[in-house]
Amino acid sequence: MTHAIIEDLTQRYTAKKYNPAKKVSPEDLHVLLEALRLSASSINSQPWKFVVIESEAAKQKMHDSFAEKFQFNQPHIKACSHIILFANKIKYTPEDYDVVINQNIADNRISQESRALMAGAYSFVESNLDAQGHHTEWTRAQTYIALGNALHTLARLKIDSTTMEGIDGELLKTLFAQELAGYDCHVALAIGYHDDEGDYNLNQPKSRLAAEQVITVV
Amino acid sequence: MTHAIIEDLTQRYTAKKYNPAKKVSPEDLHVLLEALRLSASSINSQPWKFVVIESEAAKQKMHDSFAEKFQFNQPHIKACSHIILFANKIKYTPEDYDVVINQNIADNRISQESRALMAGAYSFVESNLDAQGHHTEWTRAQTYIALGNALHTLARLKIDSTTMEGIDGELLKTLFAQELAGYDCHVALAIGYHDDEGDYNLNQPKSRLAAEQVITVV
Repeated sequence: MTHAIIEDLTQRYTAKKYNPAKKVSPEDLHVLLEALRLSASSINSQPWKFVVIESEAAKQKMHDSFAEKFQFNQPHIKACSHIILFANKIKYTPEDYDVVINQNIADNRISQESRALMAGAYSFVESNLDAQGHHTEWTRAQTYIALGNALHTLARLKIDSTTMEGIDGELLKTLFAQELAGYDCHVALAIGYHDDEGDYNLNQPKSRLAAEQVITVV
Repeated sequence: MTHAIIEDLTQRYTAKKYNPAKKVSPEDLHVLLEALRLSASSINSQPWKFVVIESEAAKQKMHDSFAEKFQFNQPHIKACSHIILFANKIKYTPEDYDVVINQNIADNRISQESRALMAGAYSFVESNLDAQGHHTEWTRAQTYIALGNALHTLARLKIDSTTMEGIDGELLKTLFAQELAGYDCHVALAIGYHDDEGDYNLNQPKSRLAAEQVITVV
């Protein structure tokens, strides 16, 4: 199999040590952030926020968020280029969806007269309520579409990354209280370029279950 | 912005009517299924199964699964080329992870001696238990990484698709009892080629929230 898509997805891996001297270019970062913004989501809800940690001060706060757990991910923070927090809305309200509808009207995708028709799709959100009256399972799932899209984008850009569910979501909500107000954060993505010497995961063979174990054609 | 990645993601859209005469080639389907198989997941758990609905008999069952709800998605089933059910494991057990570890050993990614070290990562699964003692929120999220990867892959292959959370997961588990035993199914993906006449969503402008609404750089 020599298809470019398979080559891209085969060569991507989870970096375990970054070269702090190599940073993602503004041009590539722009492509990645546009790709995130263009990600698909259920009823085009876009129930997310992407917090890009770039400054030294923000990296210090991110570094400090590993005080209590998942310290194995802490070294990436100051060595990588950027970290993106994938934040998902805790309550996705009709007012949130109104903002999306307004954007659809501004983009000439629907007419003002079709507002009520599109608003009807919100019933789908209501069917995804959890026991606490929240929508976090549903909104979290949407952010993982953006994550899958981001990982494919990074493979094409030949940028290394480390997906981190090993983060302290509660402490992050304290440290980034302003940015994460109303959101949960279940996953973060470090991006940058691997260290040629110290990354034990570099050049390791890829391992995935066989097709017959995960794919069934009926 | 004329980057190939942005062009791919901008031109992709949710097809609303398929041309039943146009089917996805075996070569392209193979690339898509390989891309799914190569998707990233937390601790490389791969807690998923991809059920590819291809035969007329299976399409009839899928068609029948809309008996009670979400009938707006029913017309896609017989007109599209294939449907993929994204199934996520309800309970992800240490035995499931052993299968992944065995694969890692077979692929020369870890040594037999490192088995216990890798098995330690299972503690991460235990921290993702829900109130019912299940792992469905976590495993569901992983399948959405594969979904995001699939949508990007389809954009590159210029194959149209319709992501459907509007499916009857419970009825699907009855109709595809053998394939979905032990799994939930929250989302399905129809793939194929749009109908040139009847697809109201074709050539509609794309609508996404502005960068400043969903991206915060700190």
